[in-house]
Amino acid sequence: MPHASCPTPHVPLHYLPNFAHCKKKNVTHTDLADTIVALATPPGQGALAIVRISGPRTFPVVDEIFIGADLQKSVSHTIHFGHIKKDDGTIIDELLVFLFKGPSSYTGEDVIEISCHGSQYIIQEILELVVSKGIRLAKPGEFTMRAFLNGKIDLSQAEAVADLIASTSKGAHDLALQQMRGGFSNRIKHLRERLIHFASMIELELDFAEEDVEFANRDELKGLIDEIMKVVDELLQSFRLGNAIKKGVSTVIAGRPNAGKSTLLNRLLKEDRAIVSHIAGTTRDTIEEILNIDGVEFRLIDTAGIREATDQIESLGVEKTMEKVTTSSLLLYVFDVVNTSASEMKEDLSKLLIDDRPYLVVANKMDLNPYAKSEDFVHDLLPTDLFIPVSAINDMNVEFLKERLFEVAIGGTINQESVVVTNTRHVEALSKTKENLLQAQQGIDSGISSDFVAMDIRQAIHFLGEITGEISTDDLLENIFRNFCIGK
Amino acid sequence: MPHASCPTPHVPLHYLPNFAHCKKKNVTHTDLADTIVALATPPGQGALAIVRISGPRTFPVVDEIFIGADLQKSVSHTIHFGHIKKDDGTIIDELLVFLFKGPSSYTGEDVIEISCHGSQYIIQEILELVVSKGIRLAKPGEFTMRAFLNGKIDLSQAEAVADLIASTSKGAHDLALQQMRGGFSNRIKHLRERLIHFASMIELELDFAEEDVEFANRDELKGLIDEIMKVVDELLQSFRLGNAIKKGVSTVIAGRPNAGKSTLLNRLLKEDRAIVSHIAGTTRDTIEEILNIDGVEFRLIDTAGIREATDQIESLGVEKTMEKVTTSSLLLYVFDVVNTSASEMKEDLSKLLIDDRPYLVVANKMDLNPYAKSEDFVHDLLPTDLFIPVSAINDMNVEFLKERLFEVAIGGTINQESVVVTNTRHVEALSKTKENLLQAQQGIDSGISSDFVAMDIRQAIHFLGEITGEISTDDLLENIFRNFCIGK
Repeated sequence: MPHASCPTPHVPLHYLPNFAHCKKKNVTHTDLADTIVALATPPGQGALAIVRISGPRTFPVVDEIFIGADLQKSVSHTIHFGHIKKDDGTIIDELLVFLFKGPSSYTGEDVIEISCHGSQYIIQEILELVVSKGIRLAKPGEFTMRAFLNGKIDLSQAEAVADLIASTSKGAHDLALQQMRGGFSNRIKHLRERLIHFASMIELELDFAEEDVEFANRDELKGLIDEIMKVVDELLQSFRLGNAIKKGVSTVIAGRPNAGKSTLLNRLLKEDRAIVSHIAGTTRDTIEEILNIDGVEFRLIDTAGIREATDQIESLGVEKTMEKVTTSSLLLYVFDVVNTSASEMKEDLSKLLIDDRPYLVVANKMDLNPYAKSEDFVHDLLPTDLFIPVSAINDMNVEFLKERLFEVAIGGTINQESVVVTNTRHVEALSKTKENLLQAQQGIDSGISSDFVAMDIRQAIHFLGEITGEISTDDLLENIFRNFCIGK
Repeated sequence: MPHASCPTPHVPLHYLPNFAHCKKKNVTHTDLADTIVALATPPGQGALAIVRISGPRTFPVVDEIFIGADLQKSVSHTIHFGHIKKDDGTIIDELLVFLFKGPSSYTGEDVIEISCHGSQYIIQEILELVVSKGIRLAKPGEFTMRAFLNGKIDLSQAEAVADLIASTSKGAHDLALQQMRGGFSNRIKHLRERLIHFASMIELELDFAEEDVEFANRDELKGLIDEIMKVVDELLQSFRLGNAIKKGVSTVIAGRPNAGKSTLLNRLLKEDRAIVSHIAGTTRDTIEEILNIDGVEFRLIDTAGIREATDQIESLGVEKTMEKVTTSSLLLYVFDVVNTSASEMKEDLSKLLIDDRPYLVVANKMDLNPYAKSEDFVHDLLPTDLFIPVSAINDMNVEFLKERLFEVAIGGTINQESVVVTNTRHVEALSKTKENLLQAQQGIDSGISSDFVAMDIRQAIHFLGEITGEISTDDLLENIFRNFCIGK
């Protein structure tokens, strides 16, 4: 599953003392009896680092190694200064501990966060000391999984935590935050409750089957299913938007030499370059530039860049890039309104257009041929609203092009209230829900026994429950949380 | 000044929104009226990140953007859950704030630490929001400098904070922690107090000069200076140890082909490799291996490695390595007791020994010539205690070799109580102290006017005061703190 994972997904091996007893125990991911520990801040040297501990033995163990306050007797949500001491009396660090008593903590368990100096030696020593007291190193996402298992958040909220950390644009951030705060879950739960009500009515009928009572009016039932199907469909359709926002929109800029692709690229990026350059950690291809439109990242692939690269880089790299061009999700075809003929343009488009990949045609150098019209070039080939007259060199209509790019790729607006599906796992569950609702619908229409309709509805309820985690298996959880950061 | 600096010394530029008003203000490093903010955890994606704010406007500003608790009315050392909201109502994150009321904080001022999700987008948004409220981005080390300026710690303790964060071995960690906790400062302050007492007696004499009173017995004075000089000398001498511990000991392994250098290297590293591999971030030369003996890092440079490298790498790299060989601080000469003649060995040593660089001679392959004695090889050339018989292949005497390595390089033992100079700035100040004490001594001997003696003593007091920061200038502080991490 292409779940938002950390670019530094696993804490380097040196943070994981390889103690034999850890291996032997063969712990499962959902074992809440264990107490767990991990570095929660990024690896590397810094002013400070946080080591997080959660589970039933948190307070007794930290009380044993921390000199400064009696933590078991302290109030939740308090901060204590002191030092961490090894059994041989060696002091590891002077530091603060942050104390959270379950259930008022992130995981719902007793939690302590040790805020030490950001030295790798100190972090290592603290982790080793804590592990030597029988606390286990946490798996990726295990703190958040515990929050889920202890009922602090549901599964879709837990997934949003990883998305939130990975988000690099306003759009992705807003959707993840909204999902983390429960907006998406509420929508799903509401749907599920209505289906449960529906199912209970049918099942009541089954109980009184011999009396031939009809508790649920068939037309009303059908109306209800229609209504729910509509919402499920809306959610499924929102995935195109959600996915674009979360992953960004890969956009090819293609066109003949001298069409002005690079000038256009520079114009598009002009105001945005500052924003791009101060958002960190985005590893990107050398020939990709990131354009941020209304909080959505458009990754622009300049095919001019590809040609230049061919001279220098081995063909392998170029092939990989060409693959990107064909698999990218938006095409920006640029042509020169002075030196391009309609047939040349037709020829180009016939090569470049793929199935239902959205595209825009940029008629560039309008300053040199101000009366050029879409009809002159493409009157039977493409809708005129996909034809954007531009003069890149004079910055004419470039802003409008950006607006159209956003509309063509995203097709809507987003804000912190939007309920949008961003997760392929949710899409799968919603698709299966839809399938079962369709079957139920057909069942009612064909007048089959209520047993079968009830079964379909129960299946639909099951799949909706998988989204929020009311239904979950160890395997499912393992799959979801293994892409998290360690320490989260 | 070779002060312990961060390997990622400055937060990347994208963490520093380039707001014009910051530039215009031309703030000095010691302006306590400002409120400052910085990311305190390492840059990069992680489970969580800490943004630290300190100064008089901390609480009013955070109260404005944080929804969840009235921080100005809250008790110090408490933790509050809520969310950070922009002026337009957009929520940036759900998070915790840690609250510290001055003077009970790291800096001595009002401090808030915002513990947000470790997303670079979120960190950036929080920093920009806080800066938009008129809070300034902190310079490197500015939080620690404020701790110093507000009298929470002295200057030598402040310097130890950076050393502590940079330390990668037990020895360096222990010395830095001891210094941070005030051990070194107490020693210096005690010396300084005795000198101040001394000076006050002489100056009293000057006040009564016409009456020809002698408040301070000259012999007693001389005895006192002798005593203090002895302590200053001890401290100065401890720098060799301190520097070796802090920086590690660069050690060349040299010898003819087939002397068994690589086998010896492997034997030396055998048990240690695990420890080495789990301490992170040590960028090291490909031909350097780190051997940790009793908490001190010996960086072993295998000259066999150099020869091998010659075939592959450009000469520039090799030259750089050869320079390392001549400038390294310890030599381990390895020879084969079967195939080496006394004259060959003499020839080698005449090339390799440098001035007073410490060295050891390893007589390897003793299993093949068990009766070999140092006299057979070098009876007039080197002291027998520098001659270590070893059989690397059988692991014979390798442990003893390690002990001798430690003794030759370090010349003592260290623990968390040791008072050791590790900082070149302190060495300079101590040397100047010594100079002035010598002059005072000579002055007393030659019977010059007490004025001059008093002046020398005052100078010595001045230089000791520079170590702990009782005497400091903006330039000095600027110099010390600019090598710190941002956020510390």
